[in-house]
Amino acid sequence: MGADQRTVIVRRIRRADAQTVRALNDLGVATVHEAQGRTGLMRPYMRPIYASARVGGSAVTVSCQAGDNLMIHAALEVVQAGDILIVTTTSESTDGMFGELLAVSARARGVAGLVIDAGVRDVTDITAMNFPVWAKAISAHGTVKATGGSVNVPVVCAGALVTPGDVVVGDADGVVVVPRAAAADVARLGAERVTKEQKSRERLRAGELGIDMYGWRGKLADLGVKYVDE
Amino acid sequence: MGADQRTVIVRRIRRADAQTVRALNDLGVATVHEAQGRTGLMRPYMRPIYASARVGGSAVTVSCQAGDNLMIHAALEVVQAGDILIVTTTSESTDGMFGELLAVSARARGVAGLVIDAGVRDVTDITAMNFPVWAKAISAHGTVKATGGSVNVPVVCAGALVTPGDVVVGDADGVVVVPRAAAADVARLGAERVTKEQKSRERLRAGELGIDMYGWRGKLADLGVKYVDE
Amino acid sequence: MGADQRTVIVRRIRRADAQTVRALNDLGVATVHEAQGRTGLMRPYMRPIYASARVGGSAVTVSCQAGDNLMIHAALEVVQAGDILIVTTTSESTDGMFGELLAVSARARGVAGLVIDAGVRDVTDITAMNFPVWAKAISAHGTVKATGGSVNVPVVCAGALVTPGDVVVGDADGVVVVPRAAAADVARLGAERVTKEQKSRERLRAGELGIDMYGWRGKLADLGVKYVDE
Amino acid sequence: MGADQRTVIVRRIRRADAQTVRALNDLGVATVHEAQGRTGLMRPYMRPIYASARVGGSAVTVSCQAGDNLMIHAALEVVQAGDILIVTTTSESTDGMFGELLAVSARARGVAGLVIDAGVRDVTDITAMNFPVWAKAISAHGTVKATGGSVNVPVVCAGALVTPGDVVVGDADGVVVVPRAAAADVARLGAERVTKEQKSRERLRAGELGIDMYGWRGKLADLGVKYVDE
Amino acid sequence: MGADQRTVIVRRIRRADAQTVRALNDLGVATVHEAQGRTGLMRPYMRPIYASARVGGSAVTVSCQAGDNLMIHAALEVVQAGDILIVTTTSESTDGMFGELLAVSARARGVAGLVIDAGVRDVTDITAMNFPVWAKAISAHGTVKATGGSVNVPVVCAGALVTPGDVVVGDADGVVVVPRAAAADVARLGAERVTKEQKSRERLRAGELGIDMYGWRGKLADLGVKYVDE
Amino acid sequence: MGADQRTVIVRRIRRADAQTVRALNDLGVATVHEAQGRTGLMRPYMRPIYASARVGGSAVTVSCQAGDNLMIHAALEVVQAGDILIVTTTSESTDGMFGELLAVSARARGVAGLVIDAGVRDVTDITAMNFPVWAKAISAHGTVKATGGSVNVPVVCAGALVTPGDVVVGDADGVVVVPRAAAADVARLGAERVTKEQKSRERLRAGELGIDMYGWRGKLADLGVKYVDE
Repeated sequence: MGADQRTVIVRRIRRADAQTVRALNDLGVATVHEAQGRTGLMRPYMRPIYASARVGGSAVTVSCQAGDNLMIHAALEVVQAGDILIVTTTSESTDGMFGELLAVSARARGVAGLVIDAGVRDVTDITAMNFPVWAKAISAHGTVKATGGSVNVPVVCAGALVTPGDVVVGDADGVVVVPRAAAADVARLGAERVTKEQKSRERLRAGELGIDMYGWRGKLADLGVKYVDE
Repeated sequence: MGADQRTVIVRRIRRADAQTVRALNDLGVATVHEAQGRTGLMRPYMRPIYASARVGGSAVTVSCQAGDNLMIHAALEVVQAGDILIVTTTSESTDGMFGELLAVSARARGVAGLVIDAGVRDVTDITAMNFPVWAKAISAHGTVKATGGSVNVPVVCAGALVTPGDVVVGDADGVVVVPRAAAADVARLGAERVTKEQKSRERLRAGELGIDMYGWRGKLADLGVKYVDE
Repeated sequence: MGADQRTVIVRRIRRADAQTVRALNDLGVATVHEAQGRTGLMRPYMRPIYASARVGGSAVTVSCQAGDNLMIHAALEVVQAGDILIVTTTSESTDGMFGELLAVSARARGVAGLVIDAGVRDVTDITAMNFPVWAKAISAHGTVKATGGSVNVPVVCAGALVTPGDVVVGDADGVVVVPRAAAADVARLGAERVTKEQKSRERLRAGELGIDMYGWRGKLADLGVKYVDE
Repeated sequence: MGADQRTVIVRRIRRADAQTVRALNDLGVATVHEAQGRTGLMRPYMRPIYASARVGGSAVTVSCQAGDNLMIHAALEVVQAGDILIVTTTSESTDGMFGELLAVSARARGVAGLVIDAGVRDVTDITAMNFPVWAKAISAHGTVKATGGSVNVPVVCAGALVTPGDVVVGDADGVVVVPRAAAADVARLGAERVTKEQKSRERLRAGELGIDMYGWRGKLADLGVKYVDE
Repeated sequence: MGADQRTVIVRRIRRADAQTVRALNDLGVATVHEAQGRTGLMRPYMRPIYASARVGGSAVTVSCQAGDNLMIHAALEVVQAGDILIVTTTSESTDGMFGELLAVSARARGVAGLVIDAGVRDVTDITAMNFPVWAKAISAHGTVKATGGSVNVPVVCAGALVTPGDVVVGDADGVVVVPRAAAADVARLGAERVTKEQKSRERLRAGELGIDMYGWRGKLADLGVKYVDE
Repeated sequence: MGADQRTVIVRRIRRADAQTVRALNDLGVATVHEAQGRTGLMRPYMRPIYASARVGGSAVTVSCQAGDNLMIHAALEVVQAGDILIVTTTSESTDGMFGELLAVSARARGVAGLVIDAGVRDVTDITAMNFPVWAKAISAHGTVKATGGSVNVPVVCAGALVTPGDVVVGDADGVVVVPRAAAADVARLGAERVTKEQKSRERLRAGELGIDMYGWRGKLADLGVKYVDE
C-alpha cells in the first residue's frame, strides 16, 4: 500500500483476441465510441502526430513521474506484438518522453503504437517510420530516469480509465478505450451500426432529410420549435 | 419572449448575390478582414480540419444545446445551394456534433461548408469528401437529440456576430463574417487593396524596405526610436 | 532608462560563424537541446506553420507593442543573409503580425525564417514560398503601426531568453536557442551525441532492451520497483 | 463602411427604465438567465475582481484596439448615472486597460460598474472603492492611446452580444445581458420564477426529493435508467 | 453492456468507517496524498468556491450528460449522511449543473459536500450556507433534464478515478481520493507523517537548513551541483 | 558548458540597497511597471495565493527540474533577510513544490516571499503565516529530490527575465522585475508618477473628463473618430 502501489511491473496481462481487436480497429474511433454507449473516449486534446495514424491493439499501461521516462523503457520488456503503450504521468507534463530511439526499440519489440498523456519528440523521424502516436504535446524537452513508476496497473489517460489489456483504438478522431470483457460485444454492435449507417447514407445522399428519415418532426414540435417565414 | 426566443426556425433569409460572394471568397480571409476595417473575424481557435479548405457562402445559422445536434438536422431543410452552416452551442462544448453522415446530407442539400463552435468527427472521411469544415475541436463524442434550438437567428460564433445571410469566408487563416449589406462594398475595397498590394509586393521583392516604401522613417523618429551601433 | 529602453534599434550584432550554425541546424532541435544541458527550449506552443519547416540561423530580435508590427519592418534594415527574426510582444497577443508581403520583403533581405510569439497570416502563401515560420497562432487579424519598440535587444520569446546573435534552430519538434558563445561547443557535443545514438539505435533495432543496454536494472531495483506476475 | 464603422461615438442611446433595471439586479444573474430562456450569458471566464461585486445597469459599449484604452476615456463623456461600461477589444488581450484613476473618473461620471473582456489593474484600490468590475484577467500592463475605436455600437463581449442600452446584470455567478426591449418581460418572468422556487425550496429543505417533487421518476424509467442493489 | 452501462443507479455501496473518514479529513489533502504514495489527486483546476471549504466523506458518484443534471437529482435518493457527491459529465462542460436549490436539497439529505467536474452557480448563496463545493468553473448556465446517466459507477473526475465508497478529502489545496480498502492504512501512514513533520518543523523554525536536516549535501555533490562565489 | 550550466549554486550576489527596495515596494506593481517603460512584468497567470499579499525584495533565483524541489532547499543556504525566492522549472509543471514546512524554513532564514512558476500547497497554512506567495497553480502534488539544478543564475519566470539581485515587487496586480542597476532610477520616476497622478486624481474626481485633462480631443479627431447622435 502507499508508495509501493506505484512501483510495480506486472509481467502478464490478459488481452482480447486478435480478431476482435482487428474488428474494432476497422470500425474506427467514432463508431466504437457510439457502440459502447458513448464511454471510454479520451479528451480531444489527445491528437495524432500525423493525420493518417490509425491503430488498434491491447493496452500496456505505464505510469511515470512527470519528466521521467524510465518506466517506458521498463515496459518494453513485457510487451507482446500488437500492444499499444498507454503512457501517463502522475502530474501534468508536456515533456518529450518518447522519441525516435524509443520508437525504434518499441517497434523492434512489436509495439503497434503509442498513446501518451504528455509530449513526444523526433516527430519527423517517427512519422517517417509510420509509427502511430497520439500525444498531448510535441516537445523536444528530454526526461531524466530517476524515479520509479509502474507498468500494467490501471491508469487514467486523457480523462479515460485504461485497464491493462483493454482494447485501444486510435485514428484521426482521437482515442477510445474498450474494456477487454466488452470488446467482442462492442465489435458486434459496431458492425450492426455500420450496416445501419450505410442505409442511412444512401438515403441522405439522395437528398432525404434526416428529420424525415429519423422521424424527428414530431420531436421538434413537442419541443416547441416553431417555423416562421420571416 | 424568454425560452421561445431560442426555438424558432426561420425558413427564408436574404442572401448576398452570388457574384459578390464569389469575389469575397477569391479575396480570402485576411484581405476581407482588412477591407472591412478589421471587423468580423472569428477567434483564431477556429481552424480548418484540413489545410486546403477554402469556402465562401451565405450564413445559415444554427443555435444548439451543447451536446445536441438536432437543430443541424432541422437546418438542412431550409438551406440553399452555396450556404454555409454556422453552428453554435448555448454553452461551450467540444462534442463532435457533425460527422460524415451529416456531411453527406449537407452536401446533398447544396451546403458549401461548415463553421462550428464545437467539435466534429469522421474527419478523415470528411477530408476525403473535400467538404470544408472549420471547428474548435476534433472529437468522436456523439450527441443526443433532446433539446430544441433555433435556425436562422443571430448568433455569436467564435467571438463574431453572425446574422443569417451574412457572407462568410473561410480559408487557412480562419473565418471572417461580412454583413450582407456591406458585402459589395467590402468586395470592392478588397479588390482595390489587392491591386495596391501587388505594387508593394514587387517593390519589396526587389529589396526596397517597407519603412522607406510606406514612409515610416519619420514616424519612427517621432516615436523616439533611436538607432545605435552597439 | 525607462521608456527609452524599449525604443532602440541596434544596427550591428555579433553572429556565430556559418559553419557552426549549419552544424546546429543539421543536428535538429532535440539533439541541440540535449547537447546544451536541456536549456534554451521554447515552450511547446511554438509550432511550425507547415510540418517540414526547418531552419538554423542567427537571431535578430524584435520587441513590439501587441498588435503593432512597425518594428518588424524596421528590423529588416539591419538583418543579414541567414538571420532569423525573433519577434515578441510586450504583452500577450495572437494578432497576425506577419503575412505574405512581409515574407516577400524578409526573403528579399536574406532572412532565413521567423519565430513569432504571436500570430501570422497568409499561411497558405507563406507555405507555398517555403518560408519557415514558427508561431503561437494563425490569425488574419492585422496590426497597426503606432508604437515604438526595439530591435536587437534581449527578449523573452515563448519562455526562452534570446540575445541578439544567438543561434536559433527550428524544426518539427519546436525551437531552441543557443547562446553564441556556446554554439561551437554545443555543436561538438551534439555531434558526439549523434554518434553515440547511432550505436544505440542499432542495438535497439536488433531487439535489445534499453534497460539492459543502458544498465538500468539495478536502478529499478534500487528504486523499489517490483516485478509481479499478476 | 469599412474602417469608419469602428470609429464612431454614439452620444445618445435608449435605456431601460430604472425600475426594471433594479428588478433585474435584484433577481441576480442565474435567475435572469433562466427567465430569458438561457440566453445572453457571458462566458464563465468573466469573473468579478472581488466576491461581493454586484451590479445592474444600462450598457454603454466600448470597442478598443487591444492594448489601447483611449476609447474608454472617450466613453465617459456620454455615460449617464447608472450605466455600466462594457469594454471589448478587436482582438484578444489581457492588458490592464482600466485602473484606479479611470475608476475614480468613472464613478465621478456616475458609472455603476465595468465589464471588460481584457485586463484590469489597481485591483486593491478598486476593491477598496467598492467599484464593481468583471474582467478576463488582472494585469498591471498599461495601454497606449494611439488607435481609434467606437462607443455605443453593438459588440461581442465574452461571447455575448451587447447592444447599447441593453440591461447588464453582474454578480458572483458572472454577467448576463438582457435586450432592452425584453427587459420588463424578463423581470416579470424572473419574479414568477423566484416565487415558484421559494415553494420548491421549502419542500426540498424538508427532505422531499427533486425527482418526486418535479415528477421525474417516469422520465428516468423512459430513459432506461435502472435501479440495482449492487 | 453498451449504452446500458451508463444508465444505472446503484442503491447500496460500501463505505469506509466514520472514524477513518474523520482521520483523513483531519490530515488534509496534501498529507493524505503523500501518505498514499502520491496517487489519487484531482487536477489542480478543481478549486473550492470559497477558501475555507473543507470536507471528508464517502463518494457517491454521478455520471451525467454534459449540460444535464437529472442524475444529480436521482443521486440524492441513495445518499447517506456524510456522503460527498462526485459529479462528472461524459464530455467536457462548464455549465452550472448545481445551484442553491440543489444545495438545500443535498444538505437536507445529509450530503456533506460536492465535487463537480463542471460548473456551479448561486455561489454566493452556497457560500452563505457553508456548503463545501469544489468545481471546475462558476457559471450561471442552467441545465436540461433530458438524458439518462448513472449513479454509483466508477467515474473519472478531474483526472482521478473515483469508485463509489472511496474516501474523498477536499480543502484549499484541492481534492484527493482514497480507495476504501486503503483508507485505514493511509490514515495511519498520514498520522505518522504528521508526527515526523512536527519534529522537522521545529528544527526548520530554529533555522536549521533542510539540506542538513534531511542529509542532502552528499546528493547535491553526487548530482554534480557546484558552489561558486561569483 | 552544457549540462554543467544548470547545476551551480552562486553564493554571493549583489543586491539593490534596502531603501530603494522599500521605495519600489511602496509604489506597487502597476506604477513600477509604468515607471520602467512597461517592461519586466510577469504574465498575468502569476497570482497571489491570498489577496492582500504584498512584497518587495531582492531576487534569489532557483532553477529546478519539473516536479523536483531539491534546489529550493539548497537555495535557503544562500539567502539574506529580505530576499525573494524566484523559482522556475526547466519545463512546465503545476506540482506543489513549496509547502508549509518550506515556508517555515524560508521565514526562519529571512526570506520575504516566494514567486514560483509552478504550484504551491498548504495554502491555508501559508496564508495564516502571512507569508506572501505568487504562483501559477495550487496543487497538493508533492515533488521528488532527484535532479540537480541551479541557484542564482538568470532565469525566465512567467515570461520575465530575472537576474539574481534584481528587485522584485509583488502585489494583487501581479509581479514585476526591476534590474538592479535601474532600481534607483525607476523608484525616482515612479515617485514622480505618483505625484502627477495625485493631481490627475483630484481633477477626475471632480468630474473633469480624461479626454479634456489629457488633451486627447484633437487625437480623436485626427484618428477619424466621429460623434453621432443616433
